[in-house]
Amino acid sequence: MNESSDDFQTDFFEGTEKLLEVWFGTRSSSECHKKYDLRIIPRTTWETMLKLVKCEIISQLSNDELDSYVLSESSMFISRDRFILKTCGTTTLLRCVNALLYIVTQYTGFDKVRDVFYSRKNYMRPELQDKPHSSFEEEAGLLDSIFKDGNAYCLGSINRDCWYLYTLQGHHINRADQTLELIMLELDPKIMSIFTQAESGSALEATRKSGIDTIYPGAKIDDFLFSPCGYSMNGLIKGDYYETIHITPEPQCSYVSFETNFPHEKYEQVISDVIRIFRPGKCVATLFASKESVASKAVRHFDDLVVVGYQQEELQMCRFKEYDLTFALFAKAPS
Amino acid sequence: MNESSDDFQTDFFEGTEKLLEVWFGTRSSSECHKKYDLRIIPRTTWETMLKLVKCEIISQLSNDELDSYVLSESSMFISRDRFILKTCGTTTLLRCVNALLYIVTQYTGFDKVRDVFYSRKNYMRPELQDKPHSSFEEEAGLLDSIFKDGNAYCLGSINRDCWYLYTLQGHHINRADQTLELIMLELDPKIMSIFTQAESGSALEATRKSGIDTIYPGAKIDDFLFSPCGYSMNGLIKGDYYETIHITPEPQCSYVSFETNFPHEKYEQVISDVIRIFRPGKCVATLFASKESVASKAVRHFDDLVVVGYQQEELQMCRFKEYDLTFALFAKAPS
Repeated sequence: MNESSDDFQTDFFEGTEKLLEVWFGTRSSSECHKKYDLRIIPRTTWETMLKLVKCEIISQLSNDELDSYVLSESSMFISRDRFILKTCGTTTLLRCVNALLYIVTQYTGFDKVRDVFYSRKNYMRPELQDKPHSSFEEEAGLLDSIFKDGNAYCLGSINRDCWYLYTLQGHHINRADQTLELIMLELDPKIMSIFTQAESGSALEATRKSGIDTIYPGAKIDDFLFSPCGYSMNGLIKGDYYETIHITPEPQCSYVSFETNFPHEKYEQVISDVIRIFRPGKCVATLFASKESVASKAVRHFDDLVVVGYQQEELQMCRFKEYDLTFALFAKAPS
Repeated sequence: MNESSDDFQTDFFEGTEKLLEVWFGTRSSSECHKKYDLRIIPRTTWETMLKLVKCEIISQLSNDELDSYVLSESSMFISRDRFILKTCGTTTLLRCVNALLYIVTQYTGFDKVRDVFYSRKNYMRPELQDKPHSSFEEEAGLLDSIFKDGNAYCLGSINRDCWYLYTLQGHHINRADQTLELIMLELDPKIMSIFTQAESGSALEATRKSGIDTIYPGAKIDDFLFSPCGYSMNGLIKGDYYETIHITPEPQCSYVSFETNFPHEKYEQVISDVIRIFRPGKCVATLFASKESVASKAVRHFDDLVVVGYQQEELQMCRFKEYDLTFALFAKAPS
């Protein structure tokens, strides 16, 4: 995304996103004159905060429960008590955490962080990242300096494809929550060319031509086609549910991510749909589900999940206090 | 183990072991005049190899299928096609890998490495380790230079208690194999004092007083009490089965490891027995089981495993091609 050079064939862009999700709550039930809603925070305040991250808002879309922002590098989602920021390239996402906590305290009644999830895949070129993103140890160190009881994990193979997670030990929650993320690499160049201005006249055209609009047919879509190439979309599904897709199409560093918190009892269909659209050489899948989620069975039985044409090369499961997590690596089966 | 100073209270000893397990096989079924048995390799050859690791043989015990060695720092087990070396302190275990492969080729008919498992907990004081053990990245890098298709993993919390594993992608095996390891920290000082020469007159006395002899009552035991403190034991159980225990009793760095490949359908009893003997503040448990093992169900249902007085703080599972692995962290429940 946000590519400035014309040198499509040789330029490098780090599609790999940093992803932060923070849930807010209150320490006590004491009366407070402020609202318990992150959506009252003004856009100009978010814009100031995003300067620390080195990205900006391109577009906004809302439904009754969710404000979504397409950014110059990926996306931001604000709902009543949940903040999600996902940024790619050499953005400095974690530089905004202290500012975020300050802003939330200033504008809302929330005085407690209930949950934190910071995650990313290993970078293609870690040496290009700015502080504090040079290494996961550095990222985790910064988060440790802000939060108590944080745990840092590495799922997958450290010396190949892995996925890092920092999360808090887990307070007792009482919510159904689930997040599926698909991180796809080594994508089909024919499909990737859809996400260039040379081939698609508009974001809408790319969305339809690729079939992205068929994943959740009822979603309200805010899509953006970058110049000369690159694509982002946020989709709002009825309720507090979103889907988001980010595409770096250049063949030498192709990268696509798909993420949704829409609840499914089974994930076979949505994973197969996304993989059929993008045809990656390999795909890291992560699925979180709280104990209350309809997805809690799916996360525990991920080994049964079949994607035609792909094999599960890696499978790991983590049991956290309030969530289960599965990490899987799919690779195209030899034909 | 092998403590040379009298300063029991302030000395530091790194009990954390490096653990290497290598399975050998043959590439073809071609005739070979050499035997397919690691046990024909002479003790003097092992002694030379162990100089690279900076440890030596203290004692030997054999049964029909297994040669066991107590070392100045931990243990070595040689059976027909499986080599196990476990060393603590600042030993340089991985410096022997090339020599091991050479020795096996020279003496036996084996010409293929079928499986490799290298693992350890995070060190208490990594800065005291010699190359290539300064970091897991360095260890994995060395192993990557020797083996193809190796994968490096980190289970547990990187910034707290974690356990590293390097293993090959997995060739097709057809064996029932299982390994339970319990790594215990923050041990009860009263129990640890049994493993000092001040309190126990002999290894046998320490073995009986502690109850170690009750874990596998039929085992042939080779035990050793170091001066002024520290304890090692190898137990040979009928068949190709072993148990091994290593104890660093000093309160400021107490560490106990228990390992066995004895097959159980359920691990509740053996884990509870070991934990009752040593009463650790926390315990990392790892259980490997091949698909053919009677333990394969236990490794998948480790979350059901209850140890009275302890709670499972962490639980992770890995699915490999031929093995399943569970990592769990138990901590003493608040009383």
